[in-house]
Amino acid sequence: MRIVILGAAGMIGRKLALRLGALGALAARPVTGMLLVDRIEPQGLAAPFAVETRAADITDPAALADLAAWRPDAVFHLAAIVSGEAEADFERGYAVNLDATRHLLDALKAAQCRPRLVFASSLAVYGVPLPDVVPDDFNLTPRSSYGAQKAIGELLVADYSRKGFVDGISLRLPTIVVRPGAPNRAASSFLSGIIREPLNGLSAALPVKRSMRTWIASPSVAIESLIHAAGLTPEEAASARSLTGRGISVTVDEMIDALREVAGAAVVARIQDQPDPAIERIVASWPQAFAVDAATRLGFPVDGGMKAIIEAYIAEELGGRRAA
Amino acid sequence: MRIVILGAAGMIGRKLALRLGALGALAARPVTGMLLVDRIEPQGLAAPFAVETRAADITDPAALADLAAWRPDAVFHLAAIVSGEAEADFERGYAVNLDATRHLLDALKAAQCRPRLVFASSLAVYGVPLPDVVPDDFNLTPRSSYGAQKAIGELLVADYSRKGFVDGISLRLPTIVVRPGAPNRAASSFLSGIIREPLNGLSAALPVKRSMRTWIASPSVAIESLIHAAGLTPEEAASARSLTGRGISVTVDEMIDALREVAGAAVVARIQDQPDPAIERIVASWPQAFAVDAATRLGFPVDGGMKAIIEAYIAEELGGRRAA
Repeated sequence: MRIVILGAAGMIGRKLALRLGALGALAARPVTGMLLVDRIEPQGLAAPFAVETRAADITDPAALADLAAWRPDAVFHLAAIVSGEAEADFERGYAVNLDATRHLLDALKAAQCRPRLVFASSLAVYGVPLPDVVPDDFNLTPRSSYGAQKAIGELLVADYSRKGFVDGISLRLPTIVVRPGAPNRAASSFLSGIIREPLNGLSAALPVKRSMRTWIASPSVAIESLIHAAGLTPEEAASARSLTGRGISVTVDEMIDALREVAGAAVVARIQDQPDPAIERIVASWPQAFAVDAATRLGFPVDGGMKAIIEAYIAEELGGRRAA
Repeated sequence: MRIVILGAAGMIGRKLALRLGALGALAARPVTGMLLVDRIEPQGLAAPFAVETRAADITDPAALADLAAWRPDAVFHLAAIVSGEAEADFERGYAVNLDATRHLLDALKAAQCRPRLVFASSLAVYGVPLPDVVPDDFNLTPRSSYGAQKAIGELLVADYSRKGFVDGISLRLPTIVVRPGAPNRAASSFLSGIIREPLNGLSAALPVKRSMRTWIASPSVAIESLIHAAGLTPEEAASARSLTGRGISVTVDEMIDALREVAGAAVVARIQDQPDPAIERIVASWPQAFAVDAATRLGFPVDGGMKAIIEAYIAEELGGRRAA
């Protein structure tokens, strides 16, 4: 099993590579080689198989032809520029998030290696108005260029798969909570911040109402979901070329209650309500919950609740030691 | 009002040009010039404004830049290769049906003329399983490359519109019945054939069960729908960037009953049941009916029923004279 991870220097890509290194196998087949690719050369890792790292510009079709020539059995395509950047730089957003995906598909088609392709899509494919619980057959009306590019990527993955050029699946990951590391400029950053910062002894701004509801998954469940997608049988993948990943639907209030249960009132007191109408407006347009019938039927993993997500963050990222 | 029609040599494009020539105006503004474009140079027409005809290869971005430099106020983008050809020639399908649409959008963006863009989409954006009546918010899971290319075009038109580069609307036309002229190789050809051929004294093969239900519109309603889309206010267009056109939902039985009412049993006797499993399979995957809430709210036109469609065909295409 030869595996390529595109976007291997990102938070998810790095964790995925480490997890596959620990597993040593994918879909019950031993991994024999892994190629980690990003704009900057990704870190390597110790693994029971050869790990190659490579810096590549995925907007260059020749770089993608090189990847395809490596003849992967599975490709995780996580490379993208984020929604804010895609909105600010229209041309670059289309070049990286759409054209590179198309060129990747064309390169894999030309190489005739027909790999399982796991394409990381996004909830940004959805646009208002949305029902409270979004069914799998709801249409995609993105309200951002990033969402449009991901929705188009899903259609391409499905059509190239239907034609037998790849065996693809597009997985819309829930918002990842708790992201380790520093805050970023994503509108969703506070969702991790209100858990992470207080547990690290820092204060955290809450820019939205506590009744705000959203669809989240832990980093672990996101990684296991990508691996699960890669391990689906061809028949299973053909039955759901695009699907929303299993998450849990929680309000900010419920997140804070769970933090209080795990870490106490003093930690929770570090959260400060600082309403930000711009962020409120963006967040109000996000889906609150999904039916995820397809992902459930296909046995995708799911988090055990907000408390379990927080406890896992403390165990995995803080070595079990949180601020009091 | 300067109007471009891309795909002006096709049946719909030609009828649209003639209709606009007769109207002399669009959205209550006088037409001051019309540019008719197709792979082969389209026919000109007599009109109260200047009509230019041009042969152009729309897969050449320079040809599209030339069109944009003409600074149209409205563009009808009807140019496409049909679904059978797009399925047989994957690369050409993507070049004509996707890349050319993207290049057109980029050319209009670069010219900063921000025209109303009416993009002819297709019911092929839908794939099984489908509900009996498809709501406007149902997702697009095309089962053909043609359908994927049209669905992607819709997403592009919506995103370029959201960014203010064009003011676009994608209209999924119902299956056109009765198409004038000779049968073609489209799987839907028989739907026109079973009306047209008997009225011209010829026999017609019926390859599907008479209980088969489909969503159709006359050529006139299709043309008026395109014109209606071009005349929507910017607010109306923004409220429904993609929508299914109003059609009528009829069974083959109902079509034949209407033909009998209009033309008598001797004409209907020219229809011969010749089951064709390949065509039955394709047709079984087509939508049977739509809710079309958006198109109805926006005042799109609709046919008065199957009898009216047949009578209009006899009046418009046969000069009122049908075979007995």
